[in-house]
Amino acid sequence: MKNKKNKIINDPIYGFIRLEHSIILKIINHRYFQRLRHISQLGLSYLVFPGAHHTRFHHALGCLHLINNAIIQLRNKGSLITFEEEEAVKIAILLHDIGHGPFSHALENSIINNIPHEEISCLFMQRLNEEFSGKLSLAIKIFKNKYKKKFLHQLICSQLDIDRLDYLRRDSFYTGVAEGNIGTERIINMFDIINDKIVIEEKGIYSIEKFIIARRLMYWQVYLHKTVIASEKMLENILKRAKELIKKNKKIYSPTSLLTFLDKKHSIKNFKNKPHLLDMFSDLNDADIFVCLKYWKESDDFILSQLSKMILNRKLLKIEIQNKKFNNDKILKISNILMKKYKLNCDEVKYFIFSDKVINHTYNPINDNINILMKNGNICDITKVSSLLKLSNLKKEISKYYLCYPKNINL
Amino acid sequence: MKNKKNKIINDPIYGFIRLEHSIILKIINHRYFQRLRHISQLGLSYLVFPGAHHTRFHHALGCLHLINNAIIQLRNKGSLITFEEEEAVKIAILLHDIGHGPFSHALENSIINNIPHEEISCLFMQRLNEEFSGKLSLAIKIFKNKYKKKFLHQLICSQLDIDRLDYLRRDSFYTGVAEGNIGTERIINMFDIINDKIVIEEKGIYSIEKFIIARRLMYWQVYLHKTVIASEKMLENILKRAKELIKKNKKIYSPTSLLTFLDKKHSIKNFKNKPHLLDMFSDLNDADIFVCLKYWKESDDFILSQLSKMILNRKLLKIEIQNKKFNNDKILKISNILMKKYKLNCDEVKYFIFSDKVINHTYNPINDNINILMKNGNICDITKVSSLLKLSNLKKEISKYYLCYPKNINL
Amino acid sequence: MKNKKNKIINDPIYGFIRLEHSIILKIINHRYFQRLRHISQLGLSYLVFPGAHHTRFHHALGCLHLINNAIIQLRNKGSLITFEEEEAVKIAILLHDIGHGPFSHALENSIINNIPHEEISCLFMQRLNEEFSGKLSLAIKIFKNKYKKKFLHQLICSQLDIDRLDYLRRDSFYTGVAEGNIGTERIINMFDIINDKIVIEEKGIYSIEKFIIARRLMYWQVYLHKTVIASEKMLENILKRAKELIKKNKKIYSPTSLLTFLDKKHSIKNFKNKPHLLDMFSDLNDADIFVCLKYWKESDDFILSQLSKMILNRKLLKIEIQNKKFNNDKILKISNILMKKYKLNCDEVKYFIFSDKVINHTYNPINDNINILMKNGNICDITKVSSLLKLSNLKKEISKYYLCYPKNINL
Amino acid sequence: MKNKKNKIINDPIYGFIRLEHSIILKIINHRYFQRLRHISQLGLSYLVFPGAHHTRFHHALGCLHLINNAIIQLRNKGSLITFEEEEAVKIAILLHDIGHGPFSHALENSIINNIPHEEISCLFMQRLNEEFSGKLSLAIKIFKNKYKKKFLHQLICSQLDIDRLDYLRRDSFYTGVAEGNIGTERIINMFDIINDKIVIEEKGIYSIEKFIIARRLMYWQVYLHKTVIASEKMLENILKRAKELIKKNKKIYSPTSLLTFLDKKHSIKNFKNKPHLLDMFSDLNDADIFVCLKYWKESDDFILSQLSKMILNRKLLKIEIQNKKFNNDKILKISNILMKKYKLNCDEVKYFIFSDKVINHTYNPINDNINILMKNGNICDITKVSSLLKLSNLKKEISKYYLCYPKNINL
Repeated sequence: MKNKKNKIINDPIYGFIRLEHSIILKIINHRYFQRLRHISQLGLSYLVFPGAHHTRFHHALGCLHLINNAIIQLRNKGSLITFEEEEAVKIAILLHDIGHGPFSHALENSIINNIPHEEISCLFMQRLNEEFSGKLSLAIKIFKNKYKKKFLHQLICSQLDIDRLDYLRRDSFYTGVAEGNIGTERIINMFDIINDKIVIEEKGIYSIEKFIIARRLMYWQVYLHKTVIASEKMLENILKRAKELIKKNKKIYSPTSLLTFLDKKHSIKNFKNKPHLLDMFSDLNDADIFVCLKYWKESDDFILSQLSKMILNRKLLKIEIQNKKFNNDKILKISNILMKKYKLNCDEVKYFIFSDKVINHTYNPINDNINILMKNGNICDITKVSSLLKLSNLKKEISKYYLCYPKNINL
Repeated sequence: MKNKKNKIINDPIYGFIRLEHSIILKIINHRYFQRLRHISQLGLSYLVFPGAHHTRFHHALGCLHLINNAIIQLRNKGSLITFEEEEAVKIAILLHDIGHGPFSHALENSIINNIPHEEISCLFMQRLNEEFSGKLSLAIKIFKNKYKKKFLHQLICSQLDIDRLDYLRRDSFYTGVAEGNIGTERIINMFDIINDKIVIEEKGIYSIEKFIIARRLMYWQVYLHKTVIASEKMLENILKRAKELIKKNKKIYSPTSLLTFLDKKHSIKNFKNKPHLLDMFSDLNDADIFVCLKYWKESDDFILSQLSKMILNRKLLKIEIQNKKFNNDKILKISNILMKKYKLNCDEVKYFIFSDKVINHTYNPINDNINILMKNGNICDITKVSSLLKLSNLKKEISKYYLCYPKNINL
Repeated sequence: MKNKKNKIINDPIYGFIRLEHSIILKIINHRYFQRLRHISQLGLSYLVFPGAHHTRFHHALGCLHLINNAIIQLRNKGSLITFEEEEAVKIAILLHDIGHGPFSHALENSIINNIPHEEISCLFMQRLNEEFSGKLSLAIKIFKNKYKKKFLHQLICSQLDIDRLDYLRRDSFYTGVAEGNIGTERIINMFDIINDKIVIEEKGIYSIEKFIIARRLMYWQVYLHKTVIASEKMLENILKRAKELIKKNKKIYSPTSLLTFLDKKHSIKNFKNKPHLLDMFSDLNDADIFVCLKYWKESDDFILSQLSKMILNRKLLKIEIQNKKFNNDKILKISNILMKKYKLNCDEVKYFIFSDKVINHTYNPINDNINILMKNGNICDITKVSSLLKLSNLKKEISKYYLCYPKNINL
Repeated sequence: MKNKKNKIINDPIYGFIRLEHSIILKIINHRYFQRLRHISQLGLSYLVFPGAHHTRFHHALGCLHLINNAIIQLRNKGSLITFEEEEAVKIAILLHDIGHGPFSHALENSIINNIPHEEISCLFMQRLNEEFSGKLSLAIKIFKNKYKKKFLHQLICSQLDIDRLDYLRRDSFYTGVAEGNIGTERIINMFDIINDKIVIEEKGIYSIEKFIIARRLMYWQVYLHKTVIASEKMLENILKRAKELIKKNKKIYSPTSLLTFLDKKHSIKNFKNKPHLLDMFSDLNDADIFVCLKYWKESDDFILSQLSKMILNRKLLKIEIQNKKFNNDKILKISNILMKKYKLNCDEVKYFIFSDKVINHTYNPINDNINILMKNGNICDITKVSSLLKLSNLKKEISKYYLCYPKNINL
């Protein structure tokens, strides 16, 4: 009997992604997973990179494709991965980002406060586990790093996990920042497992160096692009203002499910006690925010309407970036001009002028590190064996300060 | 004095797109043009091709890039194009699609009836012309084909226009259907102007053949992909139902601007008499439809809620495709089962079972044709000189019939 | 025990090609196979396409990669392919072109007359079979189509074989004629075996159409590019002249192994009786011809020296192409001018002015055809089910006539 | 009157390269330039990377394409480049590598000793200048850095010259080491001229970092790949042995032009005094070496025949790489085994066992450096402003030691 059940999906990056007819396909078809189609991978970056409209849905499928290749490689090299483990690690990577809300990271702290998206992902997995009669138990164990074979968790979450391998490649592709491209296939070819840890064969060192450099480039050139920062901070401010107005009992438009989250903060405990909260959350996507902006641009609250219009019409705040803190006098001076010009008090003006820092770690070996398997059998951290990256600099947290305020202010 | 004013945009396809600081940049920054960022190029195709989230905004910039190359080529070959004409034709291509509403073609007849998007594009251009004190007059003339140099209009609208050169390449790229790719640059290199008409140099024949074949492939494999048809017809039905309910004074959610168009039909005359109509329309984008779907899935109208849920969770109707009309008995039989199962009357059931045809012309030389400039100086239609395409078949309209109905119907 | 023996080769087209440590790697390392590194895939095409320096060696590895994917696909769909068959078909594809001599097709009839390269390939395989104690017997059987499972032979040699899938893609890639690119991976995904024959699933029809069109485009745009024809015919003439001079006992330079083949014609029988002949042949590669040209450009035979110089310095004959035979008067007239100008007799002048035709079959279903597996289970020829290719034209042999003669002849 | 004289060449990397009909096309058509078609860009690297058969000819055309883009950029930014300077700098880049002999760098010191290829390039330029009645004078001045506008020379020869921008991209492309790819277009977009020096705009810093890293990766992964080193050193040894045998009056095959250079050393003075020397040199290409190998593999000199066979059949010496010098005892021990096994004296054995080091400078700012134009107008060295590359390490010369000797030696 012929088995022709493989489903094939066109992917501009990998060519084709094959999906087997199994629980994995059922999960993909589930409404929780389908919602990722409407959650953009890179928030508002499309305001700078017009190609960057790819979604969490696509990223998750890409990860599935790569982990499949990784499993083939590792088995080829003699690592034992059972069929159950294979399925579980595939489910885990597929769902690792399912907890993201609208605009992914951009609104991470605006819609749900103080709960990392990984915890929400866990809630979704548990919910699906109930629906699928316990078939996700092993996946959850691996995701939470409670399974004995630790390398399976590392595939999903580590300095060199499948998640990063896909998102760097994908974000580089869709933004058109070709230089962020990495040798995904080559790196996976260099994977091996030693003592239950992912290691990279020595001849892969240059690829790893390039991976680290490309990641750094993508951070400064895309993820922390100054116009992206400005627009995402403005969007955060819009939601902050909406919450404030709601607290003051001002009536503003919001779909019910979004209102639930603007109205009050929910702890992870809330989520566990009130199952409908997760359903509410699962109902949210980028479109809710856009439609709110369109309503809010007509609001009689100046702050809300002004900022909403600015995002919709891409008339963004000016942003300056520098390596040290911005001078307080300058901020005060601009604030005063703005307060006068727009009749704002000193709390309100902060919606239009604000300064903070963004941080990036090029390589952060505190939690885990990238291990190289030397030809002599030794295992070393990449920074120890790379003549280039043998540098304290790399581990150093790099901060940049930004200051946003309206254009056309005469100083 | 240095002029560093060129703005550079990353494009995954062409590498970089350069924008000069001129009226063109001002038009791009205008809110009418910015709205195209939220109108997807390919409607619901992303339900089949998860990479296909590119927008009308991006397509318009791509066209601008290509027409720039075409102008350089044509001038190199001795065609006279003045600076004013260059600017005008660039503006015209940039705005040729600005009249599209949410989901582009998919809802072309659901939101505005019987007005082609080109006419709405014209309205936008006229509005912008007022704002920019007449600087778009020549662009409008070219767009309407009222300018003496007819080839400029052909660049924007003909069998082998810049529009097609960009969208085939771009849609092929983002869907991952690599086979739809065409030799954009080579074709533009082969452009020449003879007797005020675009012609292709003889050695470009194979590229043109491939262009025609690729276009045909993209039609059947992407634009008329059966799952895409099913989902877009369902979406049309949703809007049809919404209008019906509104007519019956049922209260359903809709943002005001969308309501304006669901509530009644507007003729082109209406648009001309009531300027705010165009503003209403300019306010619409994909997000409005998505949010409606989310509200409507909770509606107490079974048809509206059911269809909305189906789109949101991608539980689509089954679709069959064949070369001849579907048998009426079969349709009746299924209709009866459905009417019984869902308690629908014979009008209502048509929302869940429907049949029609889709049509494609691979090459339609009725209006204009693709002219080849032979080495001996003669100019011939491509079908006359291509040994492959010398075929009546190519000009023939090809129809395919589809039938949609719910899965899990036992016949 | 870990098995890390896979060898990985960088390929600009497929990314990586994996070679298992087995008899296949031993064959690749054999001097017979290594010689393919110095035999260009596309003869003198690099004179027009400066990137086209790829070799038969690389093509053979590419085929190995693709057949591996095809085997995985077919097994997935339920076709039984034993391990022995897998190895044999891989060996057969690897060696299918090993019988090529210098410049591949360009000198096919100049070095060895009347023996197709496939027969020489067979001789090599038999020789290797002896060396490897009979381990190639099954591969030879498949290659000669004497094995019961006919579809294995079809993978190597048919209208849609792995050979074509690789060479179209590779030649398109290295010449830079991007339009010749085909959907290799997609086509292989559509492979299935029915009644011991390769068939293509119905939804692959458009890809097959595109494959046929791309092949046609590559023929006219690359393989039969007029400058390529001119240069290859000139090279043929050079070898013809060398043979003539040798026959007349004129002393001209030649490496011994080449001399063996210039000196007299060898039948396939000769090859079988005199084993050293094959060794002589295996010693030949492109470099021999180049060095001869460099010696011959100093020859005191005008014809030999003149033509050699022309190739080396790329001062080629002019070539005209048309659909009908060239007028004899024109040829005679030019011949007369040339005879006078260069003091040539009427036999000699034919080295500098000659006319013939080139032929291409876009699709030739006489021997075998491309079968489509329809959804209803029927199997049909592609031309029957493709609305585009339902054309007698496609099967028609297309001839073009060329006429070559020196530039700067005043007619 | 129409000017359709542009010649278009297909390039797999840049799509199309346009050549104007001018002296540049005449130079390209000259036999001195055409010979570059037969000189491989990367020596014997194709033994490791089967795609790496690209030539100096193709690289030179690629440089021409890039310098054209650079000139457009610089003019856009207000730099004055006259038409004469444009032509001259294009000629200079086109001819910068024309002095390369067979296998480019691999035999740089085997065929001509102690004369850098740049000086031979100069000789060719002067010869062409005579032929073209002084039209290359400005090009030569720029090439020799004797022209007042120093930045024109920098485009051809500096830490970030057009040469590097093309060869890194091209070598990465043809070897398939995709990670060596660099953002050529972006870097050129960031070019500017300040105080007669090329500078890079600040926002190009990450691209420059990536350029440096990619260059380093290409060095260790491709140019200094251990198998490439082994084979190229073996080839050097072969030529050394040939010279030795000639000196001892042993008769070995060699084409006359090659013999001229094997027979004795020629100083740059010789070249200047004896014009035919350059013609002899211009006659050499890769094919001469290959044909010699084929003759020499039959030589009765064991060393010559053995090494030639090893290259031809790719049975290379084993190579070990390490960061410190190899232990002399080990070398001695192996030497002794070899002397006994092959009956070699202690001079002769050095052809089969040898050790040395290879050196790479990732960034060498001694001669010149990469300057960044900061937003505040300052100009800084890249290492000063890159938080990553602020490292002594980068400037450090990195050495690796290698040891080559036959496989199958039992130690």
